[in-house]
Amino acid sequence: MTDGPIRAGVLGASGYGGAGLVERLVRHPGVTLAAIGSRAYLGKPLAASWPHLAGLRSDLRFQDSDDVIAASDVVFCATPHGATAPLVAQALAAGKRVVDLSADFRLSAAAYEEWYGHPHPHPELLPEARYGLVELHRHELPGARIVASPGCNATAASLAVAPLAAAGLLGEVAIANVLTGVSGAGRSPSGPMHFSEMAENARPYKPAGTHRHTAEIEAVGGRVRAALARGDAKRLLTHAPFQPVLVAFTPHIVPMNRGIIATVATRPLDWGDRAPTTETVLGLVTDYYAGDPLVDVGPELPQTKAVAGSDRASLSAHVDGRTGQVLVFCAIDNLGKGAAGQAVQGFNVAFGFAETTALSLTGAWP
Amino acid sequence: MTDGPIRAGVLGASGYGGAGLVERLVRHPGVTLAAIGSRAYLGKPLAASWPHLAGLRSDLRFQDSDDVIAASDVVFCATPHGATAPLVAQALAAGKRVVDLSADFRLSAAAYEEWYGHPHPHPELLPEARYGLVELHRHELPGARIVASPGCNATAASLAVAPLAAAGLLGEVAIANVLTGVSGAGRSPSGPMHFSEMAENARPYKPAGTHRHTAEIEAVGGRVRAALARGDAKRLLTHAPFQPVLVAFTPHIVPMNRGIIATVATRPLDWGDRAPTTETVLGLVTDYYAGDPLVDVGPELPQTKAVAGSDRASLSAHVDGRTGQVLVFCAIDNLGKGAAGQAVQGFNVAFGFAETTALSLTGAWP
Amino acid sequence: MTDGPIRAGVLGASGYGGAGLVERLVRHPGVTLAAIGSRAYLGKPLAASWPHLAGLRSDLRFQDSDDVIAASDVVFCATPHGATAPLVAQALAAGKRVVDLSADFRLSAAAYEEWYGHPHPHPELLPEARYGLVELHRHELPGARIVASPGCNATAASLAVAPLAAAGLLGEVAIANVLTGVSGAGRSPSGPMHFSEMAENARPYKPAGTHRHTAEIEAVGGRVRAALARGDAKRLLTHAPFQPVLVAFTPHIVPMNRGIIATVATRPLDWGDRAPTTETVLGLVTDYYAGDPLVDVGPELPQTKAVAGSDRASLSAHVDGRTGQVLVFCAIDNLGKGAAGQAVQGFNVAFGFAETTALSLTGAWP
Amino acid sequence: MTDGPIRAGVLGASGYGGAGLVERLVRHPGVTLAAIGSRAYLGKPLAASWPHLAGLRSDLRFQDSDDVIAASDVVFCATPHGATAPLVAQALAAGKRVVDLSADFRLSAAAYEEWYGHPHPHPELLPEARYGLVELHRHELPGARIVASPGCNATAASLAVAPLAAAGLLGEVAIANVLTGVSGAGRSPSGPMHFSEMAENARPYKPAGTHRHTAEIEAVGGRVRAALARGDAKRLLTHAPFQPVLVAFTPHIVPMNRGIIATVATRPLDWGDRAPTTETVLGLVTDYYAGDPLVDVGPELPQTKAVAGSDRASLSAHVDGRTGQVLVFCAIDNLGKGAAGQAVQGFNVAFGFAETTALSLTGAWP
Repeated sequence: MTDGPIRAGVLGASGYGGAGLVERLVRHPGVTLAAIGSRAYLGKPLAASWPHLAGLRSDLRFQDSDDVIAASDVVFCATPHGATAPLVAQALAAGKRVVDLSADFRLSAAAYEEWYGHPHPHPELLPEARYGLVELHRHELPGARIVASPGCNATAASLAVAPLAAAGLLGEVAIANVLTGVSGAGRSPSGPMHFSEMAENARPYKPAGTHRHTAEIEAVGGRVRAALARGDAKRLLTHAPFQPVLVAFTPHIVPMNRGIIATVATRPLDWGDRAPTTETVLGLVTDYYAGDPLVDVGPELPQTKAVAGSDRASLSAHVDGRTGQVLVFCAIDNLGKGAAGQAVQGFNVAFGFAETTALSLTGAWP
Repeated sequence: MTDGPIRAGVLGASGYGGAGLVERLVRHPGVTLAAIGSRAYLGKPLAASWPHLAGLRSDLRFQDSDDVIAASDVVFCATPHGATAPLVAQALAAGKRVVDLSADFRLSAAAYEEWYGHPHPHPELLPEARYGLVELHRHELPGARIVASPGCNATAASLAVAPLAAAGLLGEVAIANVLTGVSGAGRSPSGPMHFSEMAENARPYKPAGTHRHTAEIEAVGGRVRAALARGDAKRLLTHAPFQPVLVAFTPHIVPMNRGIIATVATRPLDWGDRAPTTETVLGLVTDYYAGDPLVDVGPELPQTKAVAGSDRASLSAHVDGRTGQVLVFCAIDNLGKGAAGQAVQGFNVAFGFAETTALSLTGAWP
Repeated sequence: MTDGPIRAGVLGASGYGGAGLVERLVRHPGVTLAAIGSRAYLGKPLAASWPHLAGLRSDLRFQDSDDVIAASDVVFCATPHGATAPLVAQALAAGKRVVDLSADFRLSAAAYEEWYGHPHPHPELLPEARYGLVELHRHELPGARIVASPGCNATAASLAVAPLAAAGLLGEVAIANVLTGVSGAGRSPSGPMHFSEMAENARPYKPAGTHRHTAEIEAVGGRVRAALARGDAKRLLTHAPFQPVLVAFTPHIVPMNRGIIATVATRPLDWGDRAPTTETVLGLVTDYYAGDPLVDVGPELPQTKAVAGSDRASLSAHVDGRTGQVLVFCAIDNLGKGAAGQAVQGFNVAFGFAETTALSLTGAWP
Repeated sequence: MTDGPIRAGVLGASGYGGAGLVERLVRHPGVTLAAIGSRAYLGKPLAASWPHLAGLRSDLRFQDSDDVIAASDVVFCATPHGATAPLVAQALAAGKRVVDLSADFRLSAAAYEEWYGHPHPHPELLPEARYGLVELHRHELPGARIVASPGCNATAASLAVAPLAAAGLLGEVAIANVLTGVSGAGRSPSGPMHFSEMAENARPYKPAGTHRHTAEIEAVGGRVRAALARGDAKRLLTHAPFQPVLVAFTPHIVPMNRGIIATVATRPLDWGDRAPTTETVLGLVTDYYAGDPLVDVGPELPQTKAVAGSDRASLSAHVDGRTGQVLVFCAIDNLGKGAAGQAVQGFNVAFGFAETTALSLTGAWP
């Protein structure tokens, strides 16, 4: 580490996750954005990919990953899963630290193999990784060499599942229906994400049991239960064993750029004498996130616009006495708290900055 | 009934449901659109409310309800719930028949009072009503004096719930998460539906147990079970007693004009030796709707664009063995199969026309 | 020609123009949709490309162009410019007639070479072509072997320019600013048309003098002047010489699926004693299109929603006395009157059917 | 002026302009947001109107205008035209300074009466006003008691017109076609701005000569000519006499939340020997805004997404030699550089802060 500002590099800087990192890192008072990486835009200036950054850091040109890693103290990887693990290995070998937005270091070796169908490419590095859901892993992150920043769907669903698990309200299965904006599918042109195919359209995809984020959400729920058993349901441990939790997660894509809203429904097992009410569940979710600067909990049902452009999460809860279902709702900006904002939040904690440094607390409305 | 074409009137013709009725009735070969009603546009020509109908039926001007009823053999009511029952009573007293798109004649007197908080205003007319979900009540509709056309959310969810109930796969509760386009909220200006508040926004509203369509969906499921016991799970009876069914229905509004997609998840009670698979569930849904001209079932997950502008429903199914959840998906156009299309479909059967007369089988893409 | 229904084939049936043709031709009472062509979907059923047509004509599978031409009496070409001329030549050589939605037969050989940068590939066929802007070329179309159906931008702008030219109000130059929905760019995935790049975005492209549709618009204006000199400004001749007209046409893409609105502004040369007013210009536009079943003219400014899903055009006019500018506005559905609707309209006239057969007069709102 | 941070109040804080002011002022290092005003939300907390600000400044409640003015050193008025002038008078009488986002102090008394149809309500205060288009009036603003912040359409069109006027390229008339997002129409529910009426719709409104922003644009052009005659075309004087300029300004509303793009076309009078080219015009626009930190000029045509969420303007130019038209394009965020951003920029210059303090330089993409 140098004495001056930390030199940050961004791999995958021509994707949406990368743009969000660049936006935040250029305004981070403790960071110099040293290098940006992209194969598609190699050699071109930042504004070639990002017209909205025209005139800012016009000195920056996209470089290859070797040069980005060489120029950086910390490497943010906004690169595809599978392709990222070798880059992480390379960066660590060069003595750099990593904030990884890909899925490559989020799961245990066993879970990775189960959901991705092949062995983890760098299992020796997994012990270095800390899961970057800051609200639940804050104490583990300082000094982490790999911050494994959570996926966008997983973040929204996990923030809803965790307080239920902590309160013993998680039933046999949690139904996590998630609505997600189109930017979650990335920037590459594709038929189904073409404007004319996607506007005025809504559709489920990868129904329950088939989306890999399921493993992340279940792991968070399981870690909460394990931490609860240890006495503090908000001090999760990335690598501790945990109790299985079942989540039926079905994402739906809806015609908007940004935003995710997770509606998690479950029927507590011991529903009976102590039947929870909307008020009690709302109270326990509020208590669970007390002191978390990026989480709002309130009686109003969340909406994605309230968090679009920001790095915050908005939660609420509801109990349907008729059916015994407890619902928790969580809205985030998939590119904010669901990606770049959360990555910088994790970086801040890992590197000793105030947690919300350079983050967006307000977003914009409309 | 006259010898020539049936004279149809539309009350509430300046709302979205009314526009859809006008569009279909002007092209119906057995109908003359005789009169259109609207208080807001009283005395003005059709195109004052509907620029897209400029030049068509320029003879028509909006009239008050008395005049519309007087001029019609059949009165389509696309008027608000509560305000409609008296109009239906008036029309029936004048010897007319009614297709009612409001909620006023969809529930039993007891269920109405439970969900609306006051006694039904015209319980004496309830026995005249036949529930207009044609696929399930087709045999009941010929000659009906009141066709109680289902609500849009209820249609999508019910079409998904019914085959599950018929196959004995409906568990203790069905979680019905529904995404709906904005036109479902009607045409009246409102803060939350303002373009700048609604574009780039998605949000749940009326969470499980609070939306009145819940009663409709549960009634359909219960009627299927009762019909199943009688030996034909597709010959439902509007007024027969039925077994209770629990549905946790949570609608979400998403930024598109048209379309509803229902994702219904349930855990069959007797999951075990005969664990269903995606293929078996898909097969039974396909079989359940065999012969229904407006229902498509297939392995592709539905999307709203595939039915926007049409009067069709698109269904699929999926089984998650890990969690024991069976999912059925149903997409409709909330203003087509969810409103005007279904009303005209019900009218066709009630009045002896071919079921799809004047309906839209293709919609448009994109 | 057979004695029964005309056998129609559609080349490029997996594109948006092709879908619109299929939708209209399946409901055309004088036509059998005999074959559909697509290289991308070769061998697959219609619904593989078009989920909204699931269940309709499930017998149809995409074929190669040879088979489509062989199976058809009339071939609709919704294929890319440049690639279409050889297909037209092939069809004509086989004794078939053609409705061409590409740009290949819209311009004279000289204009084609000027705007496309190379000689026309089949100049010998140009004399067969009739420009399919039916309102202005109706008398020329019966029996035409090639109907050269106009481009979407050109249709909107030309319908606005023509009555100005006919009234002698077209000044030295007409400024044609056009807003167009995204489907005008076709269905192929592309970076700039990706939902997340295009939603919440508006931008000009191909500014004045660089878009090839300019040549079409100028030709229409010039033909009107020539026809005016011959005594009937609505009986245009595709191949007659015409007086030059200057149009500065700048298209802008805006975030919606369908629709074009052209705002044409010009300063009449002889503005002075006989300064036109909004009323007089509105009157002359109304008169110019009197009797055209697909054109509405009125004092309300047009909006794209009023024509979306329909095959109609909506026009209005305005005069700004301060600046001497006369404005004419024209809204169409780029895929309706701007593409498939117009092509079928041209086909109807060319083949002796009533002009609006199988066309959409109502569209849908919202 | 106090010794500590400047106490700022925002009137109309529950509208979109007000929200943008609150967002920027809470992060302004030289400002304390002291009070917020709203009649509709009187007594309620900030988050009642603005869910995206939940948790920030939860101490703030909406107050009436008297209390806001009393609590502030500077009052930002994001209130309707007509209603604002008396509030400005009240604030000035109380010794406060004002940044006015309404139209009340933008025009001369004569122009105001011409375009608004009645005499200016406080002509005695007009000499206090300085027009807050900072790029052109920067030298006039320090110490101003009233900063009259320009309208959103006027800002986009004026930034395009000014360099043309400065270069002597403005012809007899400039055609200003403007596309604007829906938030420009304000937050009040209205029929035409209802999501279902506005999504998938584009339409012109207030065609050339009827929109009051015309007067602002023409005044800017005229002031540039007057300043040019004085020797510096970027040092405009709010109250100096100026030469008439004609602009045919037609706004079009398009279905997006934010953003304006102005396409200004004109035919230089002395087109001939010194015919401009795209390169020369681009060069002179670039030179004109050299040193302006919020204006980008480049060869790529602007797009609204590049400036959405930011306080910047993006310009380009094009020359069509065929028609002699010179085009300048300008994109802004109507709520950023078109409203709150520009108001804070003007405040910064008026109060001695660095011009871009608290402004958004990056926006967000997508």
